[in-house]
Amino acid sequence: MNTVQPSAIRDLLALGADPAITSFGGGYPDATLFPRAALEGIFRDLLRDPSGDPLQYAPSDGLPRLRAQIAALMTQDGTPCAAEDVLILQGSQQGLDFAARMFVNPGDVIIVEDPTFLGALIAFAPSQPRYAAIPVDGDGMDIDALEATLAATPQARMLYTVPDFQNPTGVTLSLPRRHRLIDLANRHDLIVIEDTPYRHIRFAGDTLPTLKSLDTQGRVIHLGSFSKILVPALRLGWAVAAPHLLEKMGLLKVAADTQTSTLNMAAASLFLDRHDLAAHIATLRTAYRHKKEVMLDAIRHHFPQEVTVTDPEGGLFTWARFPEGFDATAFMRDHALPEARVAYVPGGTFFATTPRPNHARINFSAPSEDRIRAGIKALGHCLKTHL
Amino acid sequence: MNTVQPSAIRDLLALGADPAITSFGGGYPDATLFPRAALEGIFRDLLRDPSGDPLQYAPSDGLPRLRAQIAALMTQDGTPCAAEDVLILQGSQQGLDFAARMFVNPGDVIIVEDPTFLGALIAFAPSQPRYAAIPVDGDGMDIDALEATLAATPQARMLYTVPDFQNPTGVTLSLPRRHRLIDLANRHDLIVIEDTPYRHIRFAGDTLPTLKSLDTQGRVIHLGSFSKILVPALRLGWAVAAPHLLEKMGLLKVAADTQTSTLNMAAASLFLDRHDLAAHIATLRTAYRHKKEVMLDAIRHHFPQEVTVTDPEGGLFTWARFPEGFDATAFMRDHALPEARVAYVPGGTFFATTPRPNHARINFSAPSEDRIRAGIKALGHCLKTHL
Repeated sequence: MNTVQPSAIRDLLALGADPAITSFGGGYPDATLFPRAALEGIFRDLLRDPSGDPLQYAPSDGLPRLRAQIAALMTQDGTPCAAEDVLILQGSQQGLDFAARMFVNPGDVIIVEDPTFLGALIAFAPSQPRYAAIPVDGDGMDIDALEATLAATPQARMLYTVPDFQNPTGVTLSLPRRHRLIDLANRHDLIVIEDTPYRHIRFAGDTLPTLKSLDTQGRVIHLGSFSKILVPALRLGWAVAAPHLLEKMGLLKVAADTQTSTLNMAAASLFLDRHDLAAHIATLRTAYRHKKEVMLDAIRHHFPQEVTVTDPEGGLFTWARFPEGFDATAFMRDHALPEARVAYVPGGTFFATTPRPNHARINFSAPSEDRIRAGIKALGHCLKTHL
Repeated sequence: MNTVQPSAIRDLLALGADPAITSFGGGYPDATLFPRAALEGIFRDLLRDPSGDPLQYAPSDGLPRLRAQIAALMTQDGTPCAAEDVLILQGSQQGLDFAARMFVNPGDVIIVEDPTFLGALIAFAPSQPRYAAIPVDGDGMDIDALEATLAATPQARMLYTVPDFQNPTGVTLSLPRRHRLIDLANRHDLIVIEDTPYRHIRFAGDTLPTLKSLDTQGRVIHLGSFSKILVPALRLGWAVAAPHLLEKMGLLKVAADTQTSTLNMAAASLFLDRHDLAAHIATLRTAYRHKKEVMLDAIRHHFPQEVTVTDPEGGLFTWARFPEGFDATAFMRDHALPEARVAYVPGGTFFATTPRPNHARINFSAPSEDRIRAGIKALGHCLKTHL
């Protein structure tokens, strides 16, 4: 439990609360895009239900109607499944916790992207894994490197990936690599955790098939989430997995917290009944695409040439690479915060094995356009002064 | 993970959904007593908040204001603590999961009441514990038996108890026994999990000090819950514990699900700001006391003399003891369900070590008075026919 210290995340959340700081640090969606009026009507009607059912206990696997609705969304997205293939989770983070508890014993190896999602490292830490970290390029995880690592790592049990608009780099796993990843998982008997919180926030290019849809052996656990496409506060995620895996996850759900909030499950279900989720997602895509462009324009204008950033096709983040020797943590503490009044996530925390401190994750979904422009300009000035 | 099968609970939940069956099986509060109008106003105002904050992410330890309000409630209840001593949980069930993960390795012994809460056995099961089960009488856990067991069980790591209106028996741990329990925990270096979901639902007698309030060595983890005093659907519980324990639980919270629902935390906080929780609890006490009396009256009239039941001073359950040789599971399947159209929880599932099948847990909080009267009458007739 002492392997990963979430203090970095906590400190950044604390900074995000200081209105004088422009925070590019969090992974927050844009609160001005929350469908507050729709939810107000939904909660009103749920609370007026004379049965009181939306306020009562509910089945631990989730409300049957919501499971069916999620199965329909998944099927529409090219991953055919039925209600009984869906387990409602307390955010997809809970699926990461369950996966580690099911498959990872101390010393087992988890394959992750290099860099990878810090929350996953935190979820896996109590199981005391070791890691093999696979480099990432513009097409996602380097599958040649994966193949070589698997050949040398018989203790590999589980592979964790964010194939769409990866956290923190923003890159997407290409279609040929998806096929090869599944092929390697089959050959090496790996469980694959496919985490897709950003999948529907696509700005450009074509949607690629989920890893789950390419899985013929029931070894992919697909995790989805309403946090980025509806609101984070409901804490609603889901798993789609083969029956023998979902059964075990269902047992852990009973053990871990009995059930997800009935009221929140009922609200999401009614949102899907009454409103057009696809239209809402289209609104989000347009808004986040625009913010991404505002940020990348500002970076091109204001950052020194030697800093490179990714241009993601979706999601919430760009990933900056600074010259070798640059320490993004020290720079934030000594310059970005006191001089530019800007926060980001220093990249070192995202590396499971060897931290590379000359990186930063920069979020464009949460801040306003004005703050993006002003914050990037100030950060660029600060970088030019000190680089 | 295969140690405890929650299928019994799932099947009973399914039965509870059949309106033709009078279910005394669940642990549901009375849905007609939910403060729906108050919550409707609260959710409306939260959803109209132009900042969108109630729909955004929140700190993993819980909303600071809610933690302070819970600390005030605990202090008022005789267990002085501050906001930073409180961790918000996804129901108190999550505290059981965390406790097992923190303190129990495979083969370690957990001390439990005999019988004990099934949900705790389910939460502890993934840690593969062994159990020492301590008999319970009208004053709660038999502390002489506990002392003898501890002397013979050096592997004992953790003690789990529901001191107030225990689930399933309804009995309350007496004050002298509370002192002796803490003394034994100190001598044997035990972690004590004090689970108090029913504590505020007292019909008679004086409120007794929490075990936490008697703990001078920081070894009691107190778990509380809004499920029975507000609504279950918010999934809001909390832990109060010494800083070094709460810190570890906080790390597990980040790992397990990042945070409890922001919206639900904000709703509970606003309920405490705007409404009189003590007055609401007084209403619940009166209503449940009445239902308990209706049920015990009906049992006295209709059950055969050889069936005894507890007369709890609070909580949601009475515990029936049938003659030796009686199998409550078979009787429910063969007679109570098909003939009397009544469900209860067969007692065997509540015993951690040796099931004693001649018991049943009978809930009086959920069914209406009319159904209590008719259901107990039908069950009594059925028992008299077959005993």
